[in-house]
Amino acid sequence: MREVAVLGTGMTRFGELWDRSFREIGIEAGLQALVDAKLSSKDLSALYLGSMASGPLLDQEHIAPLILDYAGLAGRHLPAIRIEGGGASGALALHQGYLAVASGQYDYVVVGGAEKLTDVPDTTGNQIASASADHEWEVVFGATLPALWALIARRHMHQYGTTPEQLAQVAVHAHAMGAKNPLAHYRNRLTVAQVLGASRVAEPLGMFDCAPLSDGAAAVVLGPLSEAKRHTDTPIRIAASSVATDTMALQHRRDPTVLESTRVAAQNAFRAARLTPSDVQVAEIHDGYTISALVALEDLGFVEKGQAGPAFERGEFTGRGRLMMNPSGGLKAQGRPFGAVGVAQVVEIVRQLRGAAGDRQVPNVRVGLTHDVGGTGATSVVHLLERGEP
Amino acid sequence: MREVAVLGTGMTRFGELWDRSFREIGIEAGLQALVDAKLSSKDLSALYLGSMASGPLLDQEHIAPLILDYAGLAGRHLPAIRIEGGGASGALALHQGYLAVASGQYDYVVVGGAEKLTDVPDTTGNQIASASADHEWEVVFGATLPALWALIARRHMHQYGTTPEQLAQVAVHAHAMGAKNPLAHYRNRLTVAQVLGASRVAEPLGMFDCAPLSDGAAAVVLGPLSEAKRHTDTPIRIAASSVATDTMALQHRRDPTVLESTRVAAQNAFRAARLTPSDVQVAEIHDGYTISALVALEDLGFVEKGQAGPAFERGEFTGRGRLMMNPSGGLKAQGRPFGAVGVAQVVEIVRQLRGAAGDRQVPNVRVGLTHDVGGTGATSVVHLLERGEP
Repeated sequence: MREVAVLGTGMTRFGELWDRSFREIGIEAGLQALVDAKLSSKDLSALYLGSMASGPLLDQEHIAPLILDYAGLAGRHLPAIRIEGGGASGALALHQGYLAVASGQYDYVVVGGAEKLTDVPDTTGNQIASASADHEWEVVFGATLPALWALIARRHMHQYGTTPEQLAQVAVHAHAMGAKNPLAHYRNRLTVAQVLGASRVAEPLGMFDCAPLSDGAAAVVLGPLSEAKRHTDTPIRIAASSVATDTMALQHRRDPTVLESTRVAAQNAFRAARLTPSDVQVAEIHDGYTISALVALEDLGFVEKGQAGPAFERGEFTGRGRLMMNPSGGLKAQGRPFGAVGVAQVVEIVRQLRGAAGDRQVPNVRVGLTHDVGGTGATSVVHLLERGEP
Repeated sequence: MREVAVLGTGMTRFGELWDRSFREIGIEAGLQALVDAKLSSKDLSALYLGSMASGPLLDQEHIAPLILDYAGLAGRHLPAIRIEGGGASGALALHQGYLAVASGQYDYVVVGGAEKLTDVPDTTGNQIASASADHEWEVVFGATLPALWALIARRHMHQYGTTPEQLAQVAVHAHAMGAKNPLAHYRNRLTVAQVLGASRVAEPLGMFDCAPLSDGAAAVVLGPLSEAKRHTDTPIRIAASSVATDTMALQHRRDPTVLESTRVAAQNAFRAARLTPSDVQVAEIHDGYTISALVALEDLGFVEKGQAGPAFERGEFTGRGRLMMNPSGGLKAQGRPFGAVGVAQVVEIVRQLRGAAGDRQVPNVRVGLTHDVGGTGATSVVHLLERGEP
């Protein structure tokens, strides 16, 4: 397999972008990434686009050629392919872009992720947002995604003594980082008291335990590592790209506090890259709900099962340990436009590894990880990214 | 790149399968393909699933892990990824499966396509079926897919003298072949008079110029060609897998009678495989509308632009020429479950190249082609398949 590098990044602001269309934000992110990679559209071989629910949201499927078209590139007749896997759609698109370049069939590929969630009246509780859970065994009975993650939280509390305060710390950290991120949906700081006092969504999760629904797009340009020096002074190698799945319905898992798909994807990624969790200095981790991040930290191997709560409280993932989690603000503060999330995570890690993350730069980073989840973990995707030697 | 072979095929009956769920038909096709490839699920590396509109149709996205799960394979935690590109979703999934094996990251991959179109009240004229056209520039103005293809037909008639009788011949051929195909949606024969006398859908296209909406699923198993002899006596090599795109809206094309995406995909495929159209003895071609097949025959290079009508009438693609088109019955008679179509085309060509196509076997076939289209040609996918020497 050919080695693959990230050569450029692009990203719109995340938030309620009511004055901008799906097409516009997709194009903005993609063109930014091309410019950043010092490529013109003439060099491009293909587009992969991650998006979860363009059909129900926009009455529009077939969105990958749509974005190429409205970027003025229809005349190039390039391959343009949409990838879908619930909230993990963006990370899966990256996996496909990675394989496309690794295979040798394509040289320079734009991987984008885009979603426009705030133009429809009620995405939260309804079937659009929960369509990544099991419709026949969960959603028809009223189990929305927040409700399912609340079950995971309850069980984690019962089994390991995790506290509401520990969960709240995840949100507080997210907003502290979001405050430093000019592209973040939320830039206000939160206190533990505010998180605990917020109105309840699904006990024990309150409003501030849940990531928002956002509009936004992100993109990266991938190419062969061997060519990378021609495009950037700081090529970032994709050391591993790994996907794993699990049962759709939470009730069918042996232990609801374990994301087996995350465990398997992480183990495969670390093995492929010949790295271990202790090699990672910065990670963008799925925190769709505060509990999601704690569970993921455990299943990715950064802390023992059941110990993420106390470790988080001690600051081990927020500046006082080896690993900085979610310097972007994560899904909670940077925002959650489903299909864009997995790509935005990679944008952040690449910017961190390049030393170009502005106010939120983590010092001395060489290896970064991204972790994206669909549903309650029926899909997990893990990428390991590594800065080349200078 | 590693050479890739098709090792097994599976397919459900196409039709109105009201007593069977999306999950059931997806699993049936996939397991058939595994058995045919003499593989157990233990050998499997990944699943790619093509499906166009599961969100609006089933209130269910994230369908690739769903199918693995209900096949009893969740415990394997395999990668499972959905691909979407309108009516070309299945062929695009095959392209991804091909790249996945070619890259070397995956060895044995099931590529499935599935769609359940007949469980909702009105798919035909509404936004689900037309969501592969340009929503903002076509669909909101009432231009459904049949209406757009009717514009293409009108212009082809005007420019090249194509006649309604020639269009009707395409449907007559489809049903003649469908009558020999036990899995076909329609097995009744049609006459030219019946096609011409059918109620009009969008002039000049009548009811029998339009492929039906069907339920159905198809699957193939891909693997490295080097291992193929261990799985089958008749491995079929994928000689080329090629994707190209064009403008979403028909009105933005220079000449609406030309599917530029088909031209480019075909040219790239023939170049990559070092073959020409005259090497192909059997082809499954997109005939969503009778005009679609005539235009495609031209743009794939089987006949000069504008000449498909007379050539079809002379029987050049129906037994009296070098090329047999759509021995399966095509979309028109075998059926059109959007995401399953591109995979079903490959199933048919593989069975033809193996000499296992029963009553509809085309004699002396060595090279086959598949051609799948999304929308009015914003996506085209071409595969070339070749029987190894015995």
